[in-house]
Amino acid sequence: MKKIITISREFGSGGRTVGRMVAEKLGIPFYDKEIIEKAAEETGFTESFISEHGEHSAYKNIFAYSFIGRTFDGMSADDYIWSIQRKIIRDLAEKGPCVIVGRCADYILQDRDDCLHAFIHADIASRAKRIVEKYGETSDSPEKRLADKDKKRRNNYKYYTDREWGMSQNYDISLDSSTLGLERCADIIVELAKIL
Amino acid sequence: MKKIITISREFGSGGRTVGRMVAEKLGIPFYDKEIIEKAAEETGFTESFISEHGEHSAYKNIFAYSFIGRTFDGMSADDYIWSIQRKIIRDLAEKGPCVIVGRCADYILQDRDDCLHAFIHADIASRAKRIVEKYGETSDSPEKRLADKDKKRRNNYKYYTDREWGMSQNYDISLDSSTLGLERCADIIVELAKIL
Repeated sequence: MKKIITISREFGSGGRTVGRMVAEKLGIPFYDKEIIEKAAEETGFTESFISEHGEHSAYKNIFAYSFIGRTFDGMSADDYIWSIQRKIIRDLAEKGPCVIVGRCADYILQDRDDCLHAFIHADIASRAKRIVEKYGETSDSPEKRLADKDKKRRNNYKYYTDREWGMSQNYDISLDSSTLGLERCADIIVELAKIL
Repeated sequence: MKKIITISREFGSGGRTVGRMVAEKLGIPFYDKEIIEKAAEETGFTESFISEHGEHSAYKNIFAYSFIGRTFDGMSADDYIWSIQRKIIRDLAEKGPCVIVGRCADYILQDRDDCLHAFIHADIASRAKRIVEKYGETSDSPEKRLADKDKKRRNNYKYYTDREWGMSQNYDISLDSSTLGLERCADIIVELAKIL
């Protein structure tokens, strides 16, 4: 059995919900907020800071380094969070079977052969609908909010992994939740985790 | 039921084999060589020319247009093949349930809602092993042959669809045949085609 399931997902695709369903169906822990809490504890940053910077640092170029918080040795706060989160994710995987959502876990755990790496995506219309239902309206259109978030996650992923975010080749399986449905996505992942 | 299954695939991933299995399991036609034969008949080009140019034209820039064969109205041979193949694929889909491999069919049939679009990929080592077993050794290393073919397919796809080849978002489902196995990839696609 593939013990560790990583779920990467587009904002608004319902990937986190799929991850929770998979964990429930398999009866294993689901790590999402725990990673943020542990990283906050370890770094001394607030959970909201970790949450914002852990997956999509807005600034990823040399110029910006002068603006974002530095910790020690000239390391940026983002790099520090990356390093701590990486360690937390590797420790959680070491502890036993689990589902881990986001945070480049597919890349961080790529050397383990007991992982199933999944990516959940969806069409723009479904994602827009979902984020409005879930997070409410803002002054920006849902489409703009999606484009901003996609860009940040893509840049963050590229920066730390040197891979393209959303490329099929990074995952064992990629699923469109808008055509397949969340429940079916979860079922396919659960079946594969059991068989492989 | 999703009547039309398009299978896009990396060279050496076994995607064509998966497509054939899916067609057999569903008892529907598998279109691969038929498209080449029809395009050859329609254009007057040889099947090997169609086969080579239909999915990965080596030249995709303005400069190169002076070198590749022109047909009429200044249209390149590649554009002409694209146009004919597009029509053949749309006609085949119109005829009834089928599996179509490659040739940007995912893009060409994107406006139909009775299609399931799948992408099959695999890690470099498995693909290298497979192409040597299937097509033999050449003076180029398997890795170089894969890189060349990937580049040509990527350029061709980008040129005609303005999308990135291999991005999960282009497909309902993307599967790694090296971790999942060809038979399991086929089974997952068959199940989805029946349910959706």
